Amino acid sequence: MALANRSLVTIDDLTNGEIEALFSLVDEMSDSIDRQSDICRGKVMASLFFEPSTRTRLSFEAAMQRLGGSVISAADASATSLAKGESIADMARVVGSYADIIVIRHPWEGAAKVAADYAGIPVINAGDGGHEHPTQTLCDLYTIKKERQTIKGLRIALWGDLKYGRTVHSLTYALARFGATILFRPGPGLELPEHVIRKLTTEYGGELNRYETLGQVVKEGLFPMDAIYITPSSPHQLAMMPDISIQVELKSGVDALYVTRLQKERLNATDEQQKKGKYPVINKKLLKEKEFKRTLVMHPLPRVDELAYELDADPRSMYFKQAARGVPVRMALIALLLGAKEVPVTEKDSFSRKIDYPCYRRGFGVKCSNPKCVSRQETETKYIKPQFKIVANQPLTLRCIYCEHEVHPGYIASSDWHEGRLSNKKYHSANSHWARKIRAENLIVFDSEIEAEACGFKPSSYTKMPKQKGQRKESRKK
Amino acid sequence: MALANRSLVTIDDLTNGEIEALFSLVDEMSDSIDRQSDICRGKVMASLFFEPSTRTRLSFEAAMQRLGGSVISAADASATSLAKGESIADMARVVGSYADIIVIRHPWEGAAKVAADYAGIPVINAGDGGHEHPTQTLCDLYTIKKERQTIKGLRIALWGDLKYGRTVHSLTYALARFGATILFRPGPGLELPEHVIRKLTTEYGGELNRYETLGQVVKEGLFPMDAIYITPSSPHQLAMMPDISIQVELKSGVDALYVTRLQKERLNATDEQQKKGKYPVINKKLLKEKEFKRTLVMHPLPRVDELAYELDADPRSMYFKQAARGVPVRMALIALLLGAKEVPVTEKDSFSRKIDYPCYRRGFGVKCSNPKCVSRQETETKYIKPQFKIVANQPLTLRCIYCEHEVHPGYIASSDWHEGRLSNKKYHSANSHWARKIRAENLIVFDSEIEAEACGFKPSSYTKMPKQKGQRKESRKK
Amino acid sequence: MALANRSLVTIDDLTNGEIEALFSLVDEMSDSIDRQSDICRGKVMASLFFEPSTRTRLSFEAAMQRLGGSVISAADASATSLAKGESIADMARVVGSYADIIVIRHPWEGAAKVAADYAGIPVINAGDGGHEHPTQTLCDLYTIKKERQTIKGLRIALWGDLKYGRTVHSLTYALARFGATILFRPGPGLELPEHVIRKLTTEYGGELNRYETLGQVVKEGLFPMDAIYITPSSPHQLAMMPDISIQVELKSGVDALYVTRLQKERLNATDEQQKKGKYPVINKKLLKEKEFKRTLVMHPLPRVDELAYELDADPRSMYFKQAARGVPVRMALIALLLGAKEVPVTEKDSFSRKIDYPCYRRGFGVKCSNPKCVSRQETETKYIKPQFKIVANQPLTLRCIYCEHEVHPGYIASSDWHEGRLSNKKYHSANSHWARKIRAENLIVFDSEIEAEACGFKPSSYTKMPKQKGQRKESRKK
Repeated sequence: MALANRSLVTIDDLTNGEIEALFSLVDEMSDSIDRQSDICRGKVMASLFFEPSTRTRLSFEAAMQRLGGSVISAADASATSLAKGESIADMARVVGSYADIIVIRHPWEGAAKVAADYAGIPVINAGDGGHEHPTQTLCDLYTIKKERQTIKGLRIALWGDLKYGRTVHSLTYALARFGATILFRPGPGLELPEHVIRKLTTEYGGELNRYETLGQVVKEGLFPMDAIYITPSSPHQLAMMPDISIQVELKSGVDALYVTRLQKERLNATDEQQKKGKYPVINKKLLKEKEFKRTLVMHPLPRVDELAYELDADPRSMYFKQAARGVPVRMALIALLLGAKEVPVTEKDSFSRKIDYPCYRRGFGVKCSNPKCVSRQETETKYIKPQFKIVANQPLTLRCIYCEHEVHPGYIASSDWHEGRLSNKKYHSANSHWARKIRAENLIVFDSEIEAEACGFKPSSYTKMPKQKGQRKESRKK
Repeated sequence: MALANRSLVTIDDLTNGEIEALFSLVDEMSDSIDRQSDICRGKVMASLFFEPSTRTRLSFEAAMQRLGGSVISAADASATSLAKGESIADMARVVGSYADIIVIRHPWEGAAKVAADYAGIPVINAGDGGHEHPTQTLCDLYTIKKERQTIKGLRIALWGDLKYGRTVHSLTYALARFGATILFRPGPGLELPEHVIRKLTTEYGGELNRYETLGQVVKEGLFPMDAIYITPSSPHQLAMMPDISIQVELKSGVDALYVTRLQKERLNATDEQQKKGKYPVINKKLLKEKEFKRTLVMHPLPRVDELAYELDADPRSMYFKQAARGVPVRMALIALLLGAKEVPVTEKDSFSRKIDYPCYRRGFGVKCSNPKCVSRQETETKYIKPQFKIVANQPLTLRCIYCEHEVHPGYIASSDWHEGRLSNKKYHSANSHWARKIRAENLIVFDSEIEAEACGFKPSSYTKMPKQKGQRKESRKK
Repeated sequence: MALANRSLVTIDDLTNGEIEALFSLVDEMSDSIDRQSDICRGKVMASLFFEPSTRTRLSFEAAMQRLGGSVISAADASATSLAKGESIADMARVVGSYADIIVIRHPWEGAAKVAADYAGIPVINAGDGGHEHPTQTLCDLYTIKKERQTIKGLRIALWGDLKYGRTVHSLTYALARFGATILFRPGPGLELPEHVIRKLTTEYGGELNRYETLGQVVKEGLFPMDAIYITPSSPHQLAMMPDISIQVELKSGVDALYVTRLQKERLNATDEQQKKGKYPVINKKLLKEKEFKRTLVMHPLPRVDELAYELDADPRSMYFKQAARGVPVRMALIALLLGAKEVPVTEKDSFSRKIDYPCYRRGFGVKCSNPKCVSRQETETKYIKPQFKIVANQPLTLRCIYCEHEVHPGYIASSDWHEGRLSNKKYHSANSHWARKIRAENLIVFDSEIEAEACGFKPSSYTKMPKQKGQRKESRKK
């Protein structure tokens, strides 16, 4: 399975074996970073950054330069043709005809996927809103692997902004896939989004324990946290692992403590008032606790106040190493996607990431609920039709293929039943028993009764029942 | 006639033969775009963009990189020394001492000419306000030539914003020179400017027919348009071509349909209200008309709403090809101007573009009427004197050598007549019979009576006659 | 003394011999600017500009490209991670792990020093607020040297904004060190800052004569100026040089006239009102004066109104040459700091720049008085402790090691005297005789009584005497 000519939009675009193979090339590149300057000679990378960044953009550009390639760069959205109302698809097609590979950062979630769909050349997602940032995840994983030789079975604590921190989302998926145990400690109101938790528990087959539900004995001696995610090495056994085993599992200490800054730019004003002050802070005092004795302290940078400068000289501090590894990691990735290097891939782990969910592609009835989703932007709706994976029935849950947010349409119908007779075009509550009876290929969904009726459907007797209108939003929380 | 060390400010800086020669080099470069990387090694291109652009800037920079050269880039006016009040001349001289070639985009019309005058190295105009954008024209022409083998005799329709669209202005000149028939269909209020029409009809020897003046028989079967420009292959014959021949000429269909977006950023507020909604739109339905059966659909991009996404897969759609050809076209151009490549030029066409108009260089009495002209900007008046070509006598018409806008000074005098005697220093109405009697080298012109009197001239009996004050503006419309 | 792996933050980071050696390499590079493209192949320069600039940034980037190296560039502060609250130290460490050399421009004074302290790779200061701009100074010095073969003994006039013009500060130090006589003519209210004068008179052993104190005989025949700085070739002799000798010294004319624009962006609103209009202007008329017959007219550019365009063709005008030399000067510098070139250094001059001032490093009691100093910025105080050189006792004067501004703390104490007994912790007026008695290593200073008492010190009988509160500010003027 060659990596050449592929794109990297989410960390799940790479298998575990491909990541391991990439890391072996990173090792090789790190050893002789100055002597790579012919690998990509004559190749051009377009670096398109529609959001502020120094670190990520410069590390990508440095990586391409060190490979001997060259860079064309758009660093500032306001100075680009997007100001003239251009769509991402058009931009991607045009730039795709200038360059050999595109790196894109964009505030709209799913924008990198759209770019990859249209560019005709490999596209690397350098951050799409609060969605994903897979190359940061590669740097993080590579750092853990390098310092601990493995990821499987490690205990990794994730602190801080777990809601908006895109680096955290990509990282949790990757850690889960490699079999780490993850301990979440969010800042107040900054819990992991529901759709991330769903992926962790359904697609990577893990188990989530909430701290508050643990027995008192277990809580003692554990540092405060929100939830523990445990990857089952032997699923059935672990799912039944009693509280006391969690304590045993954790007492030998935390292998890595990964903290992120508060993503101020993604908060609304009231959020900001609340969150400041209660945000977790990593400092010398904290690191004196016994469970952090050998802990790798990690941070994607930039930091604000959540990571004290007094730790910079501490041998456990990994954040500048993480950053420095950004260049060789990206060199390896670029070289592979451009086909300038090849590495043999062996899949040691049995992880198969793709559950084959049925798709909802009708392009009407429902749109993504995430206002930052690329599929909802004025310039993009001209050519993008909403598309979803049907990931659950009870409650009916559709996952946007662009931003991976979930929607819970309130009403459903079947394309199979009305057979041209208008009187048969009935719609039902998504909570009624019909939801499970309609086959995926016949499913029609509606955000609201108004929409259903606008499409010519009439309410059935199951429309108002068993759920009341207005409760729809609550249904998102398990 | 070598291209090395020359600048490209307007499309008329290249002869037809030079353009054909350039195109043969484009063919060569397109065939082996990856293997050009030694042609410009060691050369530096300065890319100075004082207006938003992704496409044009990135395609120039990609072109230079693919030639093996390197790029220094200023992408955003606000981050440059122009914010410190620097003139274009100073900037051009300084950057001209750093780089080997300059590419400049600037909102002021004529800015590229000023840069070329002072840089001391080749300068390429990448768009100067609403004036010209010659490399876009080269991509457009190259695309037509490539798809239809010739340009001579083709029927090309230009739709949309013909007033502010600089790509349209450069393109009409080029099409005229190569002998195409041009059909104009402007958006409401967005007709081709008078000075462009003048150039077409006086300098390229063509004929303009207004649609409304055509006979009814002819109008039938013609899609709505504003004006038809016909390049006379044998001038005298065609000038007398009756309406009915136009119909014959056009019935075999439109060879290319070139549409541009509404240049919102150049409209004022009231303009914007009016123009939206009535703007022509190219979509599947329109292209079903018989005259568009084999039509190349062209657009300089970015598009907004005037070109439907549903056409993207249509084989007639050329706009992404146009964009993609931006790189090899610019590679060829850069290589030629830097003297890194040479091509033999043969002038097959007899087109000689330069009418030797007399010049008005006194530097007083009149200034360009275009508020966006470089010659009128505060930082530039310190060293730029207004200069004009005297292109017509009735009414007296001066064309700015920077932005090519026309002015119609209201008053004239002769430097020949007063011979030092103050009482002889008289000025006359530009509409009086004196206008034709004064020889160009003796001509003195004045925007207003106030200006004339400030220079020590007294009104003659021909001052108020035959034109009233206040009518001057109207006189610009033929 | 090799230059490899060193930083250039202030012009004093280079000895005279090193500057001369650098200049010999500039000569070499200038002669074959096109054939250097293998010297820095594979090296990456990070170009970090947090303030507007075309000239400096492009010349650095052109220099690196011409050496065969490549560039990663951040041209606009608003598009960088500093917007996320990142410190300069973090940014420098991270970028230092991507690149081989950093060029930085920043509005905060002392920012380049902080970057150099943390980057781990060579850092070049491309301007830090109103502090220094050493590579501009190198271009200026190189131009003078090239045109006059020497700098020693030349008469150099500095006109314009001597207060905020960082290029002027760096240049005066360098001129002084090479033994030039400097004539200052500031714009109104734009005199050389006190701390610059102190450095000139104490560290370079020169003598400052104010124009107004000169005898009437001397004033005649001298163009108006503010102050004359004379570098003593044999110090004791010159210190006693009578007024009449100054006249003799100057009558043979000015060797170079260096003028700068008004640094509008550093003025506050009232400043701006006052200063405009009275600013000195260099034009043809002025240059007809006999003392300017052979004067080199110099300007760091961009100019506004202080230098007339009519001089551009005058053979005395050097400003475009200065600018053009920016590339080879920076090529030589980059090549030396990267260790890609070496030059033999011989110290002909006996100039030893380092007076070994004692340091104040307690990190409390006093902070820099310059609001633009990097040590006072919110993001930087998390890790920077204020540090000062104790450069004078009467009045007590501390020079900030970051921005070189001076502070005059009002109160002092000794760490030696209280020996743990709280009743002994007394503080005194900095103007009392204690100031001289306390040894530097025991000195504790306080900005205010409040601060002293907050640290547990009690007023002594010498606290209020001999200076009144409120007079502290006046004490800064000699």
